[in-house]
Amino acid sequence: MSADDTSGRPGHIRLTSHPPASDAELLSIQWGAPDPLTRGPVIGTVTNRLRRNVIGSHSGAYGIYRALAVAANALPRGHRADLTDTRPTDRVGPYPQWFDPERIVSLDPFGADVAEIYAEQIAAGFDIRPTIAITQAHIDLPELREAIAAGRLVPDGRFLLDSGSARVTKIALEPVWWLPGVAQRFGVVESDLRRALFEETGGMFPELVTRSDLEVFLPPIGGQTAYIFGEPADLADTGKPLSCRVHDECNGSDVFGSDICTCRPYLTHGIEECIRSAQGGGVGLIVYCRKEGRALGEVTKFLVYNARKRQAGGDTADNYFLRTECVAGVQDMRFQELMPDVLHWLGVRRIHRLVSMSNLKYDAITSSGIEVGERVQIPDELVPADARVEIEAKMAAGYYTEGERLDLDTLSAIKGRGL
Amino acid sequence: MSADDTSGRPGHIRLTSHPPASDAELLSIQWGAPDPLTRGPVIGTVTNRLRRNVIGSHSGAYGIYRALAVAANALPRGHRADLTDTRPTDRVGPYPQWFDPERIVSLDPFGADVAEIYAEQIAAGFDIRPTIAITQAHIDLPELREAIAAGRLVPDGRFLLDSGSARVTKIALEPVWWLPGVAQRFGVVESDLRRALFEETGGMFPELVTRSDLEVFLPPIGGQTAYIFGEPADLADTGKPLSCRVHDECNGSDVFGSDICTCRPYLTHGIEECIRSAQGGGVGLIVYCRKEGRALGEVTKFLVYNARKRQAGGDTADNYFLRTECVAGVQDMRFQELMPDVLHWLGVRRIHRLVSMSNLKYDAITSSGIEVGERVQIPDELVPADARVEIEAKMAAGYYTEGERLDLDTLSAIKGRGL
Repeated sequence: MSADDTSGRPGHIRLTSHPPASDAELLSIQWGAPDPLTRGPVIGTVTNRLRRNVIGSHSGAYGIYRALAVAANALPRGHRADLTDTRPTDRVGPYPQWFDPERIVSLDPFGADVAEIYAEQIAAGFDIRPTIAITQAHIDLPELREAIAAGRLVPDGRFLLDSGSARVTKIALEPVWWLPGVAQRFGVVESDLRRALFEETGGMFPELVTRSDLEVFLPPIGGQTAYIFGEPADLADTGKPLSCRVHDECNGSDVFGSDICTCRPYLTHGIEECIRSAQGGGVGLIVYCRKEGRALGEVTKFLVYNARKRQAGGDTADNYFLRTECVAGVQDMRFQELMPDVLHWLGVRRIHRLVSMSNLKYDAITSSGIEVGERVQIPDELVPADARVEIEAKMAAGYYTEGERLDLDTLSAIKGRGL
Repeated sequence: MSADDTSGRPGHIRLTSHPPASDAELLSIQWGAPDPLTRGPVIGTVTNRLRRNVIGSHSGAYGIYRALAVAANALPRGHRADLTDTRPTDRVGPYPQWFDPERIVSLDPFGADVAEIYAEQIAAGFDIRPTIAITQAHIDLPELREAIAAGRLVPDGRFLLDSGSARVTKIALEPVWWLPGVAQRFGVVESDLRRALFEETGGMFPELVTRSDLEVFLPPIGGQTAYIFGEPADLADTGKPLSCRVHDECNGSDVFGSDICTCRPYLTHGIEECIRSAQGGGVGLIVYCRKEGRALGEVTKFLVYNARKRQAGGDTADNYFLRTECVAGVQDMRFQELMPDVLHWLGVRRIHRLVSMSNLKYDAITSSGIEVGERVQIPDELVPADARVEIEAKMAAGYYTEGERLDLDTLSAIKGRGL
């Protein structure tokens, strides 16, 4: 029985922890080290304090459900995952980008391969879990069937099947933050970042401020999912044309088809572009980021919708950003600064067609060292009736467009539906 | 300037907090009290410790992004939301269910109306934020257009427009847990629940164990969204036929149309049922719960997919649950125990047609005191090719079906696609 298999609960609760007196049991993390054994595994165990080398726990926000499962006696404390047969369906990397500690700061490059890389440590009882999982799937979207019917897509039996299904490799990634690198990305002092993360969440994880020796944080937030059309290895080949969309979650449109924004139409257009790219000898990539409502959450988003629709003069494009700022204090909390990490992890160095008009995403991608060729605007006929306000306001504010940017007078004339 | 508008940061970091010496500033919470002023507002301020009456902070998991915004100097500390024009588009309740403290334990019944109810306290400087937002939308789904083309739905110009768009009232709800009630719901002692939530998350929120005087917890997890077809007030009228689906998030199917499960097809079928119910003089309700991959998260889900596809004998229905249990330690972490709260908040006492085959959901709903008439199975033609394994395994394990439950031998013959 390993030291991590403690099914009983210790009698004494420690409210804040300090570095262990002995570090014999601690595998430390040297972020960016090329040799994964020198780099060290990410260990988020909650049952063996001596072996923990991160702040937080695994599974992002779902750690709370895991805790509920233990509380409800549905899951034994210290359960260890049986990783038999779970290994990635496709290999990603290693790429040189993995070994520049400042290039990737918000995910663990070795996160998909821990069962293989750290087999010995796992056998010795260390609780090491994957933070990335790679599988394959067939996806079947009504919009793809519509594109086939309209002749925009043609099934090829390989990337796009006669049934209308597309073949993908899909990758789920949990956030693993190297705090020194995250602080640098935002241009702030690490201790200030740690303090804000602690204080502004109402006191989550005192270790953020007591354990400066722990540099890695597993934040309880949603992660990312990458959908690859074509060969994953081709993402790193600048000679293979890459069409890519980085999409931030919008449940109201992505799932329910709300007509107030362009999210799902732009996403499905991006998928169409990806399939065409794969069929043309290239590759396609969609990255889906769990940042609902500009990372403000859906309650704030719906409050803003009401304020937009009710303001004097109605829902006009000139006041589009102002209403969000009144409610949330900022226009946007998505912080694209961390987003390019997943692209570097996949080996991307050039995006031939970026299916996004966002200047924030473009700036984050290009300033991280990835070249961008064309930018692909959402086709005008895909903009839903009530979403004209959003898209015109964004273009006026700096979003990419082949057309004209409207001036303030014209923007104030672009008006959405009332309540 | 109110006491909450502290833009500077205090010099001293308090790692764990204890009850304030004076409670002159504290508005306490008496969960379940009918008078909202007696009940008291939920105050998650992170800048005024004396006025905080909960553990955690607002916006669920997006509190971390808010903290990042402060760290990055994009958001001033102590920003207060301007709630002008954000009030609900539709009134919900109050219903008698709101005032039974054990009936609703995981959301704040007054959460949509705080700007009105607590106007005086907000004016006095208390930072009181909505945890529920209610708005209206038009939703446009390709599946609805297909249903119209097939004659299954007919536009009526009111609930379903000629364009194929449906009119909805939609409601976003953030989790607000009254810990004594949550503990009771799971049949555990409150102090054990608090300790598990603290220890099993790697030490999140020491106040869970130090502040037994704070009974309300804002957990950093995703919430729920309710989509109502027809009049929201009709949900509380048992004489109006109600079709309802409670749907747990599955990004891979709901957004991307993966064919390994029935999630999106069942969801869009549920929406179709809801529209027909509204058109027939009743009402429809979809509740969308952020519980990706059975609340195990998407990394675990993809690991399980690989293990299923690779196991000896292939992906067979008889081993469907086993593979999840090997990886995660449990078959499911969704804990339907808290799910009925949103139904009680909406005044629901009878669901005429429950568009779900889940016995766990059915049991949770009916044992919470809501009657269920019919249960609506997913139409056989909507089950995707590779999802037969899932649906047959679930039916054999207790899911509702009008058809036969397969025995073990037959289950082992139901096989999904290989990798």
